[in-house]
Amino acid sequence: MFSTVAVDGAVRSWEDLRLQDFAQGFFFGAGFFTTFRIEAGAPWFLARHLWRLRSSLAAYPHAVRPPPHEFLAEDAVRETLQRCLRADAALGPDFHGVGKLSVSDGHVLLTFREHAPESERLRHEGRALDTWEPGAYRGGESTLNHKGLAYFRQYARMERLPLLGNEAGEVCELPTANVFCVLGETLVTPPLSSPCLPGIIREVLLEAGQVGTLPVVERALPFEQLTAVSACVFTNAAMLATGVPRLLGRALPGSLALAQEVRARVEAVAARER
Amino acid sequence: MFSTVAVDGAVRSWEDLRLQDFAQGFFFGAGFFTTFRIEAGAPWFLARHLWRLRSSLAAYPHAVRPPPHEFLAEDAVRETLQRCLRADAALGPDFHGVGKLSVSDGHVLLTFREHAPESERLRHEGRALDTWEPGAYRGGESTLNHKGLAYFRQYARMERLPLLGNEAGEVCELPTANVFCVLGETLVTPPLSSPCLPGIIREVLLEAGQVGTLPVVERALPFEQLTAVSACVFTNAAMLATGVPRLLGRALPGSLALAQEVRARVEAVAARER
Repeated sequence: MFSTVAVDGAVRSWEDLRLQDFAQGFFFGAGFFTTFRIEAGAPWFLARHLWRLRSSLAAYPHAVRPPPHEFLAEDAVRETLQRCLRADAALGPDFHGVGKLSVSDGHVLLTFREHAPESERLRHEGRALDTWEPGAYRGGESTLNHKGLAYFRQYARMERLPLLGNEAGEVCELPTANVFCVLGETLVTPPLSSPCLPGIIREVLLEAGQVGTLPVVERALPFEQLTAVSACVFTNAAMLATGVPRLLGRALPGSLALAQEVRARVEAVAARER
Repeated sequence: MFSTVAVDGAVRSWEDLRLQDFAQGFFFGAGFFTTFRIEAGAPWFLARHLWRLRSSLAAYPHAVRPPPHEFLAEDAVRETLQRCLRADAALGPDFHGVGKLSVSDGHVLLTFREHAPESERLRHEGRALDTWEPGAYRGGESTLNHKGLAYFRQYARMERLPLLGNEAGEVCELPTANVFCVLGETLVTPPLSSPCLPGIIREVLLEAGQVGTLPVVERALPFEQLTAVSACVFTNAAMLATGVPRLLGRALPGSLALAQEVRARVEAVAARER
């Protein structure tokens, strides 16, 4: 993580921040965050990320103290981000990497990190998914529709990266990514009620409605159907899309090409929205 | 919360602590905590609280960086606590209130707060439980056996205080307390696999094996059996035991006497263990 951060729009040093200003976030995980890609100094899908943060705050008005509205306005965050990039030569106006907005205790914290070299490599080479936890989530569990600072269930599984499912034996998500599978002639992703995070890239693909010739559809995805899947990618805002060359022991050579196609689709939308 | 705190055994001011020293706890809820009663300067069941903290750290060796062993040794924590009480006239060597140990990022943070006047009143007068969420948890969900900084699911429900259940329609716990119900001639509390927190007072009562003439038993407790319950208390380390004068609309006048009996039992054990 870079030393230059911003709190409530003001450029600060990470080392100077006090725990007491983020106490409910620390003690109870009472807060939300979002992580987004930055290319050549421009944040991707920022408006969507901010909309999701505001939705989460609105869903828990008593449990999380929201910051003043203006600190989550798109223009204000964009300007704050630019000020951070200009203030730190290690970042710079052409920064490529990952931005993160964390909200708790009435404050907005903006931080920056480099892309993990490993994750950038995996973006292109894919990552096998060979473990699963079919009953990790409960169908309809609504806290999992929010990216909360109480992220331990996901964080503790991040390295192993199991496919997480619910008690009905349906796929939900990965600890840090949404899942898309080709079944027949359709690109299927589980519904929010499975539950899963309403990921920004997931939303972009559902809105696009199509990747190549494949329609994109939100549909329950039982684990038993995974044997019929012909390609699989997972998506998140930092890495966009990663192909899955092997899914629960079965080779899926088509996944890398699918991931490339998904990234191209997302990049086209990002170019329009920026 | 009082300004005097301790980090890794050293007395500090809360206002001086830096967020960067507790970063994984803040950003991901990657840490654990425990809350305990302090009477006349003496922490109750400290050895048990520390044992549970160490167990949680041992269960997640890769996800939470543990502090050096010596900072969680009972004698060391006891001494640190005494130094805090002596260092702050607002606390003092006869302090009555609540202590809290939070562990994340390789650090141990000890903080103090007063008893909430409301909670002390409810300890004696009881609190009705009139809402429930039968499918809030998933049976066997193991993160709920640990008191984690990712506490948002409980925190967001703290004021409403619903009875939380699992997908099989069994009672699990309250957001911040374990539940005990008299069914026939038995005092029943749900098993850890329901899931629920292995609460310290819960453990003390199970070890005691009896409250008055009632044997204390760990057993699945379907919501439908609550209509046959004749008395109910909930327990936690700060308030010990609280009677439930009304459970899901039904008056349970015997609960307050039961709570008194439970408290007496717990106080007797505490007197021996201190």
